[in-house]
This record gives sequence, C-alpha cells and structure tokens, in this order.
Amino acid sequence: MKEDCIFCRIANGLIPSTTLYEDDDFRVILDLNPASKGHALILPKRHSQDLCSLDDETAGKVLPLAGKLGTAMVKALGCDGFNLVQNNGEAAGQTVLHFHMHIIPRYANGPKIVAWKPGTVSKEEMAQIAEAVKAEL
Amino acid sequence: MKEDCIFCRIANGLIPSTTLYEDDDFRVILDLNPASKGHALILPKRHSQDLCSLDDETAGKVLPLAGKLGTAMVKALGCDGFNLVQNNGEAAGQTVLHFHMHIIPRYANGPKIVAWKPGTVSKEEMAQIAEAVKAEL
Repeated sequence: MKEDCIFCRIANGLIPSTTLYEDDDFRVILDLNPASKGHALILPKRHSQDLCSLDDETAGKVLPLAGKLGTAMVKALGCDGFNLVQNNGEAAGQTVLHFHMHIIPRYANGPKIVAWKPGTVSKEEMAQIAEAVKAEL
Repeated sequence: MKEDCIFCRIANGLIPSTTLYEDDDFRVILDLNPASKGHALILPKRHSQDLCSLDDETAGKVLPLAGKLGTAMVKALGCDGFNLVQNNGEAAGQTVLHFHMHIIPRYANGPKIVAWKPGTVSKEEMAQIAEAVKAEL
C-alpha cells in the first residue's frame, strides 16, 4: 500500500466508503460524483498506477468481478446496460494514479458517457500500425 | 461460433482484418473507423453477447492481454495513454452484440473519448443503492 494514495487508503479501509463488495484483492465502492445512478469503482487493494503496472493475476480477476457487478446492477437498479471504462495516463483522463475500473450503469435516454467521432484510416496505414505494435508485443 | 455474427466471423478469420495479435481464444484487430491512431478491439473467438454472458475463464484473460497491448501501443505509437472501453447493451452504446473490448490510444491534445458530468448523490441514496446491488451479488 502507498501511504499517500487515496485509493490505497479507501481500498484498505482507512478512509470510509460505500462498499458494494470486498475480498482479499479488491474493494468495490460507489463513486462520490457518479456519472449515473450506481456508478462504481473496482479498486485493487495493492497499489498499481495503471493497467501497465498491474500484475496479471490481479488483472485477471477484474473482468469476472465486473461482470458479476454489472449483472447485479441490471437486476437491482433497472439499468438498461453498463459501460466499463478504465483510463491509463492523464492524457486518457486518469485523475487518480491507482488502477481503477469504472462500472457505469446506463439508462435509456440518459446522457452519453462514451463517444467518439469515427475516423478513417487507409489500408497502408493500418498495416504500418499493426507492424509497429506487433514488434513491441 | 454464431454464423450471422460479424465479430465471430472476423475473430475466426472468415472475414479479413488487420490483426495485431491472435491466440486460441482471441483475435485483436484494428478498428476500421478508429477513434484515434491504433484503436484496437479484443474479440473472443467464441461468441458471447456481452460481459454478462462471457465465461469467467475467457473474461479473466482480457485485461492481462489489454495491458500487454496498451504497453506495446505506448512504445510503438508514442501515445500518451490509453482507454479501455467495453459497452454492454444498446443503451450503453454497444453496436455489435458480440463482446469486445476497445483499446483506444490517447494523444495529448487529442479529442476526448470518455467524459461525464460529475453528479451528486446523498449518503442515504448511496446506502440504498449499495444494499440493492449487494442483495443481487
């Protein structure tokens, strides 16, 4: 645990939160400034800044847990779907530098959370991008 | 595999794609209408409509793979971060009903992908939401 990390302190129970779920690895809390009713955060108890530094064992547990939570939200809150959003780096909108996965319930006719303008890309550029990424895998 | 599912057909190689990565469980492709340079999709080869119906074993492999891909994108493309986005249900913006995880490289001063208006919620309402969700877990 990183002493000056607010999500470490919340995940490990040193700062109170409204907790939906807790186990040895994670605490799941309600966001204090929700994008929608039920907006939750999955917080690992062990500190990692982002997905790139999260160990595979912990990373492997996030989506099964998110699926259980999302399914429960649909039943409990009557939402019509949900988004998972996970931001890495300030340029990506990450504001707290402790890995966290947003689970955002979505309601028909509610505000958009995720949106982008569909771009275009040539076949040649796609091939170049793919070669560059594959070389780093 | 679901014969009339375009992502089943792409994931299983029946429709050509620009592939960044492939193994027994997944194909990772470049999006044809990218939100940003390098926008990729992780597609399981076996059909599931969304995260709620994805088996835990497959779900458990998605984030470790996304972390490797994101790390490679930062090195290969010079992006300043990346978003993971996964939409469940049409109300959440899901357009193809086959589970997929977006990996969206982000560049400083590039357009926003994910944004929401921070809401407010009372302590009482948070407690009610938490009780309702916990009852369904």
